[in-house]
Amino acid sequence: MEEVKSFIDKHKDRILGELFDLIRIPSVSADKSNRDAMQRTADYLREILVRAGADYARVMPTKGWPVVFAEKIVDKKFPTILVYGHYDVQPAEPLEEWKSSPFEPEIRDGKIYARGADDDKGQLFMQVKAFEFMHQENKLPCNVKFLIEGEEEIGSPSLKDFCENHKELLKADVILVSDTTVLSLDKPTLTIGLRGLAYFEITVVGPNRDLHSGAYGGAVTNPGNALSELIANMKDDSGKITIPGFYNDVEPVSDEERRLLNEVPLSDSQLMDSIAIGELFGEEGYTTIERLGIRPSLDVNGMWGGYTGEGAKTILPSKASAKISMRLVPRQNPDTIEKLLYRYLEENVPPGVRFRLLALHGGNAYVAPWESREIRAAVQAIERTFGKKPLPVRSGGSIPIIAVFERVLGIKSVLMGFGLDEDAIHSPNENFPLSNFFRGIETIPWFYHYFAEG
Amino acid sequence: MEEVKSFIDKHKDRILGELFDLIRIPSVSADKSNRDAMQRTADYLREILVRAGADYARVMPTKGWPVVFAEKIVDKKFPTILVYGHYDVQPAEPLEEWKSSPFEPEIRDGKIYARGADDDKGQLFMQVKAFEFMHQENKLPCNVKFLIEGEEEIGSPSLKDFCENHKELLKADVILVSDTTVLSLDKPTLTIGLRGLAYFEITVVGPNRDLHSGAYGGAVTNPGNALSELIANMKDDSGKITIPGFYNDVEPVSDEERRLLNEVPLSDSQLMDSIAIGELFGEEGYTTIERLGIRPSLDVNGMWGGYTGEGAKTILPSKASAKISMRLVPRQNPDTIEKLLYRYLEENVPPGVRFRLLALHGGNAYVAPWESREIRAAVQAIERTFGKKPLPVRSGGSIPIIAVFERVLGIKSVLMGFGLDEDAIHSPNENFPLSNFFRGIETIPWFYHYFAEG
Repeated sequence: MEEVKSFIDKHKDRILGELFDLIRIPSVSADKSNRDAMQRTADYLREILVRAGADYARVMPTKGWPVVFAEKIVDKKFPTILVYGHYDVQPAEPLEEWKSSPFEPEIRDGKIYARGADDDKGQLFMQVKAFEFMHQENKLPCNVKFLIEGEEEIGSPSLKDFCENHKELLKADVILVSDTTVLSLDKPTLTIGLRGLAYFEITVVGPNRDLHSGAYGGAVTNPGNALSELIANMKDDSGKITIPGFYNDVEPVSDEERRLLNEVPLSDSQLMDSIAIGELFGEEGYTTIERLGIRPSLDVNGMWGGYTGEGAKTILPSKASAKISMRLVPRQNPDTIEKLLYRYLEENVPPGVRFRLLALHGGNAYVAPWESREIRAAVQAIERTFGKKPLPVRSGGSIPIIAVFERVLGIKSVLMGFGLDEDAIHSPNENFPLSNFFRGIETIPWFYHYFAEG
Repeated sequence: MEEVKSFIDKHKDRILGELFDLIRIPSVSADKSNRDAMQRTADYLREILVRAGADYARVMPTKGWPVVFAEKIVDKKFPTILVYGHYDVQPAEPLEEWKSSPFEPEIRDGKIYARGADDDKGQLFMQVKAFEFMHQENKLPCNVKFLIEGEEEIGSPSLKDFCENHKELLKADVILVSDTTVLSLDKPTLTIGLRGLAYFEITVVGPNRDLHSGAYGGAVTNPGNALSELIANMKDDSGKITIPGFYNDVEPVSDEERRLLNEVPLSDSQLMDSIAIGELFGEEGYTTIERLGIRPSLDVNGMWGGYTGEGAKTILPSKASAKISMRLVPRQNPDTIEKLLYRYLEENVPPGVRFRLLALHGGNAYVAPWESREIRAAVQAIERTFGKKPLPVRSGGSIPIIAVFERVLGIKSVLMGFGLDEDAIHSPNENFPLSNFFRGIETIPWFYHYFAEG
């Protein structure tokens, strides 16, 4: 597999050109009117996969945005790796905060800047190019399947059904995913856990129209104030979530595991510097790494209501809304959380206003066993190209479909991503260092190698 | 003055046509790019005032939008009435909630529907047409001056300076304003008090960019949650405002005045029905009429931050903002309130975020003495055309400039408005019943008459 370095050197410009063409298509899955861009992205990937060496590749319909599937069967006796990734991206807003256009990739200081540069077009492309290398060199030690969806950023609403309807097609020994991070190229880490997600939209509804704040202010419950109260009372001063029953199902984590997790050299001051804040804050009794990995969280993702234009408009808004999401840990169930939240709102909504609760999407948390064939292969691959064994981490983010894969297909996943926490995924100026991108292409073939060895 | 009825009958269509042309110019003062519409509105009013009989009328510059001034000196020995009004309007947003276009007036069920139909283009026009009637009939018992500004809806930022620079020009015995309401045509009321206003924009600032809510959620203070907490903690469960010192300067109201105020037959259930809510809520220990008239209030006017588009974007927003305003009562000072709010924010802002406070505008409350020449004249005029003495009320709204007039020009104001609380001013589908509009034109000449009589 050593030849992968010269493969990268030789094809660097072409590889980046192909990736940039992929990034240029604005495949924002949250935008329902985006059919054309979504279809073009899927078609482009299909073509790229065939050119890379797939026996065949096709764009398959789902209830939502299409899935791209491809496979290369080398030998029926070889183990099969199912590579999962997604071609959709988060919206690019707020556009005015981008230094270069989100859908026109630009290399600055050795990093690719663009929406999707890391999440997940860049990381997915490492998988495609690693496969292309092994195919070209006739070194594929495993059969390969690709499952690339277009709805990850909106919670993979169609993929569960797709899996249920295509169990045979998706049969594999392991799922390989590049959609996570390493702490740095010097301090490799391997994600063995993911948090789950429960995402809601809450609307507080008051009077049937915006009211003059002078004529009514003081006698009528203001939906903006009411929404603020409801949000404020979801947590206490110690950072604990106060929605009754919220922690009931949380799986306890042993002291030994907590000790191991804290070995990852994550520095609070570095974290603060990277996002320019003066103080971290979270649940009392836990370190930063624990707050992010093994503890659930609750955040406002967006809020709006009333007059938000220039100057002063003296109204009492008819309604106010917020998007609020919780990150969940193993054993917590998003449906249960929805019921608890509904009951909390019911019991706490102030007099004179009503509420509406909309569940936008959810998913379970995931944990992979450290002592398994697939995790061992990932550890060996990373040690080979990074020169160091990776430390295990539990990621704060969610890839809800990973838990679905285990439940529906019965296949465990390896989360071998090569991004960095500071890549600003989901934010303006998302980026992906070229060195991480190429290190990924270099490492993936070793995973194939060690996994095939068993 | 009885001939005013036949004047109205004869000129009805022309009067409405002229008013509609005034309404059609979208003179939204909050929009800084609106120079053309503001200038056209002022020019149009200047022309209308000359046609109505003014000796002269002119558009005069200020630091902001221009003022229209006109006068008709009948006899230097006559008392002088200074009519004050405003030609600017509130923004029309949200546009999708209007049944007809906000700037294309439409008569439905005997009401004019349009932005400004009542506030204040319709009410101001009653003054202009009453003046036109008295001029045509040679019955003007007073000299008249018109002072019509274009910045009332943004807090009259330039008018104080304008008054200070034109004290001689604005000399008068009383200021007459039609920018308030009566309870109904059957239950006339006269506004003798106005609340003051202190309007702010608060921004809570956290990380230097929107963050991935998985990668950071649980370890970083979320500006959206923090803003909600700050707003929620400004009031307690009994509806009291908890900003320390907020009530310090509130002028106590005697039991006798509270008794009188409560004689106005305002029905809680009618109020609830008119805005489709099931329950009123306000400060414990006060009736609805007291909560609106003699007690201060605090309301969210608008709030925004993070992702507010379709679907689910899993970010932790970099900042979140709210427009928040307080209605003030006599003796409370908006500058003092700003200091108290700043201190409150300073002492309560959660760790890990900062705040910015922007004072948007403010004004003092106002009370007129019931036993004065001008209030007596207004009471007689209303009794003459309504057939009933009006009850005194303290309005919940604010016309901050009224307190400025008293301080700078030394002139008391009479707030003889003819709108209804249900006219939806500042809201979608603002309207003004034709019967109120014509009753206003009918009543105003009687005020001139009784005021001249002394």
